[in-house]
Amino acid sequence: MTTVQGRSSVPPLSIGKRTTRDIRNASRFAVLRGMYAVGTPTRQELAQLTGLSFATVSTIVNELFGIGLLAEAGREDSGGGRPRARLKLAAERGLLLGVDVAETYIHVDVFDAALHRLTREEHPIRERSDPTYVIGEIVGTIQAALANHPGAPVLGTGVSLPGQVQPEAGVSVFAPNWGWHQVPVQDLLEDRLGLPVHLDNPLKATTVAELWFGHGREVGDLVTVNLGTGVGAGIAIDGQLVRGVTNNAGEWGHTTLIMDGRACRCGRLGCVEAYIGVPGLMATFRAEHPGHPYARLKSQSRFVSSVADGLRREDPAARWLIERFAHELGAALANLVNMINPRRVVLSSWTAQAVGEWLIPPTRERMRAESIAGSADAVVLVMTAVEDSPVGLGMAALALENFLETAGVPSGGNLRG
Amino acid sequence: MTTVQGRSSVPPLSIGKRTTRDIRNASRFAVLRGMYAVGTPTRQELAQLTGLSFATVSTIVNELFGIGLLAEAGREDSGGGRPRARLKLAAERGLLLGVDVAETYIHVDVFDAALHRLTREEHPIRERSDPTYVIGEIVGTIQAALANHPGAPVLGTGVSLPGQVQPEAGVSVFAPNWGWHQVPVQDLLEDRLGLPVHLDNPLKATTVAELWFGHGREVGDLVTVNLGTGVGAGIAIDGQLVRGVTNNAGEWGHTTLIMDGRACRCGRLGCVEAYIGVPGLMATFRAEHPGHPYARLKSQSRFVSSVADGLRREDPAARWLIERFAHELGAALANLVNMINPRRVVLSSWTAQAVGEWLIPPTRERMRAESIAGSADAVVLVMTAVEDSPVGLGMAALALENFLETAGVPSGGNLRG
Repeated sequence: MTTVQGRSSVPPLSIGKRTTRDIRNASRFAVLRGMYAVGTPTRQELAQLTGLSFATVSTIVNELFGIGLLAEAGREDSGGGRPRARLKLAAERGLLLGVDVAETYIHVDVFDAALHRLTREEHPIRERSDPTYVIGEIVGTIQAALANHPGAPVLGTGVSLPGQVQPEAGVSVFAPNWGWHQVPVQDLLEDRLGLPVHLDNPLKATTVAELWFGHGREVGDLVTVNLGTGVGAGIAIDGQLVRGVTNNAGEWGHTTLIMDGRACRCGRLGCVEAYIGVPGLMATFRAEHPGHPYARLKSQSRFVSSVADGLRREDPAARWLIERFAHELGAALANLVNMINPRRVVLSSWTAQAVGEWLIPPTRERMRAESIAGSADAVVLVMTAVEDSPVGLGMAALALENFLETAGVPSGGNLRG
Repeated sequence: MTTVQGRSSVPPLSIGKRTTRDIRNASRFAVLRGMYAVGTPTRQELAQLTGLSFATVSTIVNELFGIGLLAEAGREDSGGGRPRARLKLAAERGLLLGVDVAETYIHVDVFDAALHRLTREEHPIRERSDPTYVIGEIVGTIQAALANHPGAPVLGTGVSLPGQVQPEAGVSVFAPNWGWHQVPVQDLLEDRLGLPVHLDNPLKATTVAELWFGHGREVGDLVTVNLGTGVGAGIAIDGQLVRGVTNNAGEWGHTTLIMDGRACRCGRLGCVEAYIGVPGLMATFRAEHPGHPYARLKSQSRFVSSVADGLRREDPAARWLIERFAHELGAALANLVNMINPRRVVLSSWTAQAVGEWLIPPTRERMRAESIAGSADAVVLVMTAVEDSPVGLGMAALALENFLETAGVPSGGNLRG
């Protein structure tokens, strides 16, 4: 044990600033979640809902009033005392943009400050990889989206990019399909747009959307699972998104299902994604049913919709694939359950939507059988409760958090419990 | 979205009380970690170390003074102002017991209030499973340990039990090797001992010990990995132990290494533990080298120490086993890295101690190759920095937390940031 001799020799402890900021954010976030969950609560109800003291809730509420994000929704009798104010989010305070950038499209969702979606701008992009082209298309799509809302102030812009993103640095660290390394997307966008931009990736955005507006309104410990071309997860513990130390937590798609097994596009062998990503499902199907018409399909979305059709018609080959899918998916989900011990595992994405009706019951059974007893009893497998565009909604919510943290509320405030 | 009509209709939000309590605990825990890390800091240094405000640190320090856990270690000139007090833990305030109960032994470590180990009592137990016998042996060993410290008050007793434990209920939910289901161990022990008892399991205790006294003094995001007969992990994120919703997080030993592979003692197929638990290593060795003398060994500890001898003598069969072990362990650790994205993966236990010199370099290489790029760069694989009895130390630390939470510091205190 070291004994210090003076201030300068004190080593930094890892629990330092990050925790303090988290405490401040957690309190503010709890109040905002209370607003979104309940609509027009009183301060007393917010304190009851969040477990925070009335004084702390009042401080946070006053700060949100101060930046115009809250307004009064009316007053009611409090049984003899001063009438109590009901609070509401000031939807008209400004716009929040949630931007979903994928390899083949850009979607810009425009929300009011209460996170109600107002409009959406969709724009296809070519499979060209250079940052100048992609950044230019993002800027153009955002400008087109904002043309529908002349004069409205923009509080924040959240942009989801594929691959590894470092939000604090505002950098796309690695986007495999574009060959991007260390592209300073936030600076490039802010220079062109003159708007505050917050970057993240789709898994983090989806998880935030689920936390704020989906199953997270009921439970704080959940794992969201995205099933598509790639597969991945987002982890929330006690209402907080788990980012990991470089924002890469949740790379469940590249955990092992069969060590030294099938080659994955990431370069390793036997990853979960190599089996249950859509190309993996197509390879599994072709190997077992080479003569079946679906085995000749090249398009991933055609393949999935054809399998869904086949299931409706009780095609045995489609049935076989879903059983295999459930066998692999259920085991891989049980790994999440055994590691994290959450209350809910939440499936999202088009694959799960298309075949969920047939996929979920056997997957649920398999996940339960493969999870240790105490964790299996605590968890349920469900479809997402965020039906429309969770990526855009989650990015808009992150943009709002960022607005509160950097612009709206002074970070030295006394918002800690 | 629901609009409330009155207080009674407000639904509970999951972010409620647990977060508030966590905020209070996180602040107090930060101050205690500062004390253990630095020895005799000033209040100013604690504020600097923890990132908490000076006022919050003072509140917590005053409360710890109030219950006699802190004392002054001297005063020093502050450059013109009032002399600054250096603080120290009041070691003589009372005793903390850390009890490690395993299938074949009970160890009771007695610590002072500054968590320095004073004495240890070791007691073998027979492989008898009934709670009456086991509880009786625990009580007897604790009484024998306390006979060396007559008259000293006991602040808390932390008892680690094998299997699934629910600390808040004080219950052993499931202990597979004893066939225990829902045994109310806390009540049984408190009735016999007249001392406050806090239950947990060895993985949680080891992780707490690493957080307070090991690598956790430098990083808050780490995963501890125990390698022995069974294997398992403990997860810490931003300085906080991850328990999961039923205290079962970290069951990495029962995630999949090879789906539908080798039978595990848990009843499933292909678990990590089935390959790299010591019985798994013995099976792997016997299958490849059936005529080798080590293949006839029955004792797990004899097998591991023989392999270590073989490595010293450059026995090719021992070398083969370590390479295989590293291939499997490295892939399984990469799953942890890809899921959690920590700063350090910390190996503990007798297996790792015995063969670590040969095991760690190839495991490190394999773990890195199997981790996604951004996470591989951020993490290192290291041996534990808690050399002696992490289970006892961690349970004593948990007993201290429990003392502060339930007995020492009123829970309505203003310790929040």
